[in-house]
Amino acid sequence: MAELLKGKPVADAILARCANQAEKLKEEHIIPVLAILRVGENEADISYEKGAGKRCAQAGVEVRNVILPADVSQEEFDETLQKLNEDDSVHGILMFRPLPRHLNSEKARNMIAPEKDVDGCTDGSLAGVFTNTRTGFAPCTAQAAVEILDYYGIEIKGKNVTVIGRSLVVGKPLALLLMNRNATVTVCHTRTKDVPAACQNADIVVAATGKMETVGAEYFHEGQTVIDVGISWNEEKGKLCGDVIFDEAEPIVRAITPVPGGVGSVTTSVLVSHVVEAAMRKAGF
Amino acid sequence: MAELLKGKPVADAILARCANQAEKLKEEHIIPVLAILRVGENEADISYEKGAGKRCAQAGVEVRNVILPADVSQEEFDETLQKLNEDDSVHGILMFRPLPRHLNSEKARNMIAPEKDVDGCTDGSLAGVFTNTRTGFAPCTAQAAVEILDYYGIEIKGKNVTVIGRSLVVGKPLALLLMNRNATVTVCHTRTKDVPAACQNADIVVAATGKMETVGAEYFHEGQTVIDVGISWNEEKGKLCGDVIFDEAEPIVRAITPVPGGVGSVTTSVLVSHVVEAAMRKAGF
Repeated sequence: MAELLKGKPVADAILARCANQAEKLKEEHIIPVLAILRVGENEADISYEKGAGKRCAQAGVEVRNVILPADVSQEEFDETLQKLNEDDSVHGILMFRPLPRHLNSEKARNMIAPEKDVDGCTDGSLAGVFTNTRTGFAPCTAQAAVEILDYYGIEIKGKNVTVIGRSLVVGKPLALLLMNRNATVTVCHTRTKDVPAACQNADIVVAATGKMETVGAEYFHEGQTVIDVGISWNEEKGKLCGDVIFDEAEPIVRAITPVPGGVGSVTTSVLVSHVVEAAMRKAGF
Repeated sequence: MAELLKGKPVADAILARCANQAEKLKEEHIIPVLAILRVGENEADISYEKGAGKRCAQAGVEVRNVILPADVSQEEFDETLQKLNEDDSVHGILMFRPLPRHLNSEKARNMIAPEKDVDGCTDGSLAGVFTNTRTGFAPCTAQAAVEILDYYGIEIKGKNVTVIGRSLVVGKPLALLLMNRNATVTVCHTRTKDVPAACQNADIVVAATGKMETVGAEYFHEGQTVIDVGISWNEEKGKLCGDVIFDEAEPIVRAITPVPGGVGSVTTSVLVSHVVEAAMRKAGF
């Protein structure tokens, strides 16, 4: 029976830390503010918006919802984003992507001021992860994986970590975050010849393939920690599933994150912590 | 007897390609120009400057040497760099670092316009390597390693590559370049528990430890390719040596770069190719 690395206590601990910091900021008459910029009425965006709003409230972070119509012009969109950049009372900007097709998503991504890029999507933030400096912020899901390891006292330094997946939002930034924390990191992907062998070499396996229930028994051995970043709806089973075949991995390994209730439930709290951190940096803490 | 992966033919091939492209640019009345910004009279800088000048001449690239006194003020330095950024006739800027202590090296690094950052030192260039897009340029030494593999027809895609070293100029960017080329990459460093084991797993080993002659027989097996990025002066032997113990590795592996005459001799040509590429991009090729 593996230890279940649930996300909720991790998220709660992060939010408690944030609430503490927000209290300190309040003494300086500063309230951390997250602006959420949404174009159109995408259901998933609205649902994420609600979740983020709740988490922000828990931590004393104010949310400002900025909603533009789905057919907004590039000019008006640019103007709105630029205003948020320039607004001194806004500490973090979350912009839902992809934007509608008629807008330039790539340009918008890099328009966000790096110091407000709490979602870790700009080139500045990625360079910060690369150089291990405090430029911008790490992508939230990648950092959530690290927060879980830290919360449960799973050592990263000196450990072999295999990351399956090389996306810009999880695989690559997570590999660098773990490298910066002194792990020996191997990144596998669709062109890797023997992914199970690479995972067998690892103390910690991170599955971020985006392919539901594809990482099974042959990837694991006793004593490993498994972080499952995947989350997909399994039509057949009528429930959410991860990239790992949980029922195969769980009896073998030492510890594993559940899906749902694992990495995904920590991501929003990391976002909130970035807003508070942005406000702290700005105030010179 | 391993195949010797000499740098000279690789460098020559790159320069021949550059000369061809420079010819095409000439038809459009464009001459690629590299500005070399040096502060003070550091011997190593001057020697590199000479080498780069020779390579540039071979490829039809013009060099503009900008030399500032060692005690130049921050203001004058900033102004000089800004002028080079704004000068439409300059396509690439090479700035020697570290700068004298009284100047802000970190600020200067990111002051260079990304499209002129032929040395791959700005956050923009690092983000470009990260996102696998044409923002800025890859650090030259990292790219030189890839050029050698390509020139000698050593497949990267699907291969296991172990990089020893995680520096900002070699280890990390090279790991990303190889990942972008579909290699399965492991990055080792001083905190890695068993570097020889990680290398034994690899088809290609890149040594970029910065520690002379420390990578010996136990790291290698038959059939491997070894890229030695290190170059240090061995006082005892009175010659330049790499990070790999050449006499131990060479009888075992399939192919290996010599030191000197390996990676180091390709780096300047990569720099030149970036200047030509910068001019091509600007001209819309």
